[in-house]
Amino acid sequence: MRLSQFHLATVKEVPADAEIASHQLMIRAGMIRKLASGLYTWSPLGLRVLRKVEAVVREEMNRAGAIEMLMPSVQPRELWEETGRWEKFGGQLLKIKDRKEQEFCYGPTHEEVVTDFARNELKSYKQLPINFYQIQTKFRDEIRPRFGVMRAREFLMKDAYSFHLTQESLGETYDAMYQAYTRIFTRLGLKFRAVQADTGAIGGNASHEFQVLADSGEDVLAFSDGSEYAANLEKAEAVAPALSRPAPSAALQRVDTPRVRTVEDVTKHFGITADHVLKTLLVRGKDGLVALCLRGDHEINEVKAGKLAELPGESVLASDEEILAAVGVRPGFIGPVGLPGNIPVIVDRSAAVLADFVCGGNANDTHYTGANWERDARITRVEDLRQVVAGDPSPDGHGTLRIARGIEVGHVFQLGSKYAEALNATVLDDQGKKQVMLMGCYGIGVSRIAAAAIEQCHDDAGIIWPEPMAPWRVAVCVINPKNAPDVHAAAESLYDELSARGIETVWDDRGLRPGAMFADMELIGIPHRVVVSERGLAAGTLEYRARTASESSAITRDELFEILAG
Amino acid sequence: MRLSQFHLATVKEVPADAEIASHQLMIRAGMIRKLASGLYTWSPLGLRVLRKVEAVVREEMNRAGAIEMLMPSVQPRELWEETGRWEKFGGQLLKIKDRKEQEFCYGPTHEEVVTDFARNELKSYKQLPINFYQIQTKFRDEIRPRFGVMRAREFLMKDAYSFHLTQESLGETYDAMYQAYTRIFTRLGLKFRAVQADTGAIGGNASHEFQVLADSGEDVLAFSDGSEYAANLEKAEAVAPALSRPAPSAALQRVDTPRVRTVEDVTKHFGITADHVLKTLLVRGKDGLVALCLRGDHEINEVKAGKLAELPGESVLASDEEILAAVGVRPGFIGPVGLPGNIPVIVDRSAAVLADFVCGGNANDTHYTGANWERDARITRVEDLRQVVAGDPSPDGHGTLRIARGIEVGHVFQLGSKYAEALNATVLDDQGKKQVMLMGCYGIGVSRIAAAAIEQCHDDAGIIWPEPMAPWRVAVCVINPKNAPDVHAAAESLYDELSARGIETVWDDRGLRPGAMFADMELIGIPHRVVVSERGLAAGTLEYRARTASESSAITRDELFEILAG
Repeated sequence: MRLSQFHLATVKEVPADAEIASHQLMIRAGMIRKLASGLYTWSPLGLRVLRKVEAVVREEMNRAGAIEMLMPSVQPRELWEETGRWEKFGGQLLKIKDRKEQEFCYGPTHEEVVTDFARNELKSYKQLPINFYQIQTKFRDEIRPRFGVMRAREFLMKDAYSFHLTQESLGETYDAMYQAYTRIFTRLGLKFRAVQADTGAIGGNASHEFQVLADSGEDVLAFSDGSEYAANLEKAEAVAPALSRPAPSAALQRVDTPRVRTVEDVTKHFGITADHVLKTLLVRGKDGLVALCLRGDHEINEVKAGKLAELPGESVLASDEEILAAVGVRPGFIGPVGLPGNIPVIVDRSAAVLADFVCGGNANDTHYTGANWERDARITRVEDLRQVVAGDPSPDGHGTLRIARGIEVGHVFQLGSKYAEALNATVLDDQGKKQVMLMGCYGIGVSRIAAAAIEQCHDDAGIIWPEPMAPWRVAVCVINPKNAPDVHAAAESLYDELSARGIETVWDDRGLRPGAMFADMELIGIPHRVVVSERGLAAGTLEYRARTASESSAITRDELFEILAG
Repeated sequence: MRLSQFHLATVKEVPADAEIASHQLMIRAGMIRKLASGLYTWSPLGLRVLRKVEAVVREEMNRAGAIEMLMPSVQPRELWEETGRWEKFGGQLLKIKDRKEQEFCYGPTHEEVVTDFARNELKSYKQLPINFYQIQTKFRDEIRPRFGVMRAREFLMKDAYSFHLTQESLGETYDAMYQAYTRIFTRLGLKFRAVQADTGAIGGNASHEFQVLADSGEDVLAFSDGSEYAANLEKAEAVAPALSRPAPSAALQRVDTPRVRTVEDVTKHFGITADHVLKTLLVRGKDGLVALCLRGDHEINEVKAGKLAELPGESVLASDEEILAAVGVRPGFIGPVGLPGNIPVIVDRSAAVLADFVCGGNANDTHYTGANWERDARITRVEDLRQVVAGDPSPDGHGTLRIARGIEVGHVFQLGSKYAEALNATVLDDQGKKQVMLMGCYGIGVSRIAAAAIEQCHDDAGIIWPEPMAPWRVAVCVINPKNAPDVHAAAESLYDELSARGIETVWDDRGLRPGAMFADMELIGIPHRVVVSERGLAAGTLEYRARTASESSAITRDELFEILAG
């Protein structure tokens, strides 16, 4: 592409709402332009990147045997009523009334539509397994759209849905999708982790998120330094400590502790570390309050807590009033010693091996020291309640956990029979008997990947694209071509030869000054830059610089082709 | 593609709402499935065709120098208010309220959004001309969606918008787009005509529709048998007759004609042909009624009439009451003789050369015979008021007009300054002065093309695809492979070789009976079919049949490759 025949519009100013690097750089590079809150136009430059991502996704989906189709973006309310999601999906569902007052939504996902398609198209187990996918525009009416295309309302997604007669078959396709996703993100040149994810309200047997690692990521993940284990923080298991609980060695003492409310206050007051403090949270259970006990240096994992049998599916802290009514004390001074007998005491695995700990005194402005389980306080049950922390042993027994931040770009999920059951999507099995199908679903945020790649790799000068996502692999820059026709001719011949070799090249023939030209090429992240100049021509060399390098080097044309072949 | 690994689902029954051949065949072939009124899922088979059309459109747009981008489908009300189209666009505009009660529409077209993009991105005449395009999903809330994807609500469109400083530049890009469209429809293997179209309310200087010729088309076009002239019927000029008006030879006579109301009644009553009858329509003018006079065998062209200075921009027939009040007579008996003097009499060119004609008597149940212009009836002005008919001379002076039906699949339009002015989209010219840009817009109905191709070419057995649009070029069918492993192996080897040569091939390895297999391949319109059978293997031949042929022939493998290379 000759840049004079393209529309490149880099800008210096970044709008105040661009908080993260990828949003700022996509605006500065002119990849996207905001139309309205959460709605972005992809400029010609941005679209080149988007299409590269799309092409890799499509190739690998096809290679994995998935079959591409295209469903409407506008979906009728009736289908969403069948699964109950018309109401349950919440505010993200953009509802629409047409001119005849019929209700529709702008599809945020396509489980309903594809299952409706499948129940009409699939009649026999012989047609299974089958895996349909599409690459299509979706809309989620985010309450607070932000971070540019990272959390836009309208976005491009690849969504696949597989149908099965047996769990074994679902497992096979799930594995195939897992492998395809691994190939996709590897081919795109991203550093990523596939992490075990919580299956949430849908249930189902397995779920992995594919997370691009980036410090600015919204998700937190834990991964082992000694194995392939990785999980979303919500899901990562905090294994039971190897050591068992020591015997009590101190006597229980009630101590006056006015104004000592937080764990930090306690550590200061008693001159101890937080791992000797027990904190007790009172949450709303199905029948009255429930006490959750953790070590002072640990945090509650609300997803794990929400799954406790005593809780109604979510973990919600009791209010001060509820606590006062049940225990007669302010929140800062709760503890398991002497807690009313109708309150179950669920203790985290790490907290359960504490001895001689400090905890709330169940009376205002008091704490206990030298408290011990069994002797002083009952345990209803020991459970995994906490977030893992760096240094925890990996749940698979190999290595130690590390914590990283990530951006979710893909998700594979075994849905099981949830949607097929709701929509009565059945096939006849080999006995001629109707069977509800099992389903998997597999999403990739195509437009988000572009932003995630930038979050993962950029510098002060701009974007650093992995080669497979770059708008062009090579930029040919020309110094002062107007006054040096031979330089212009040399640049043109180089451009032609690169193009003829199938190497996507942009020739900056706009006639800008070198500084402005180089700044643009760095900002938009072209992996390889070559400069054609009079001096170089005389010496028979080109000035080459990789986007990741800090210095240029003089190389011959043949050396350039070698670099690009490598 | 091995068909056993694809999802082909042909059906026998066609829903009652499928009125036209393409709709019926797309359902029968399993290309599309209805989700709701005007909303269709493209099955894997259908999508293959859609993507082929899309690819040709993209290649030719790029070749013509247009630059691809991608705009949101959801557009804010504010922009549409700036052009006044939020109200004016009418019921086809699907309006949406988001969770914050902000108003949007699902874009039926993108003039507003692209002009907003351009006013922010384009600052200098040096950036012009520029031509942006996208291939993107649109929504028009048709009051009566029908004909499948031909008039769907959600559809895939290529829309391009060009920006210019001068009319000359606009004309150049317009011509380039005209040529690109010609290449696109030629490459797709369609019989089409580029016809002059009315520029309607937008005004502007030029507009052509690209019409795929098909008897079932909704549009009527006129084209010359002696030149390239072609126009939408609305737009086609009826040139003035070469002969001038003969002198009167008969005397004016008023005749009682009870129950003789229509032109047909008149011809029967008087034993004359309709081209000797003058019919007079009274329409609502800006100041009272206006009379429009045509030959009895001609039809009014309402677009032409609507442009008369006396009319308010559209041509609406006066009611019986208005006519009674103004002329004192029932509609069937109006004529120009003795019409009240305040009613202008606009006469069609062909009607103006009549002599001794029959017309209404301006009194109930009477007609005049022997009527003549000037002598008996005044002419305010002669105009082109009528639809052309087959046999009319071509307006360009070359050949005779023919009438055909067509399906509009493309439209190029010189918008002029309408949108740029409304949105204040300006650039600085070479004098540093702000200039409102001129615009062109260029649309192609990508999804409609698939249906139009079927309307143009199909038979009782099914679709006959032009090769460039076919889901696959070749179908390899195998007879009884389970009992003949060598036949299976031969089919596989043929399939492999075709694929290796880059010839898109589908191998029907589903194990169906020959009849069912052949019927499917004919229904889905594969251009070339080869059958591998035990008998053929023994003879060293394949059974070949082109989709357009009525008989098969035995050919060698090499002969097959020759056919496919041709």
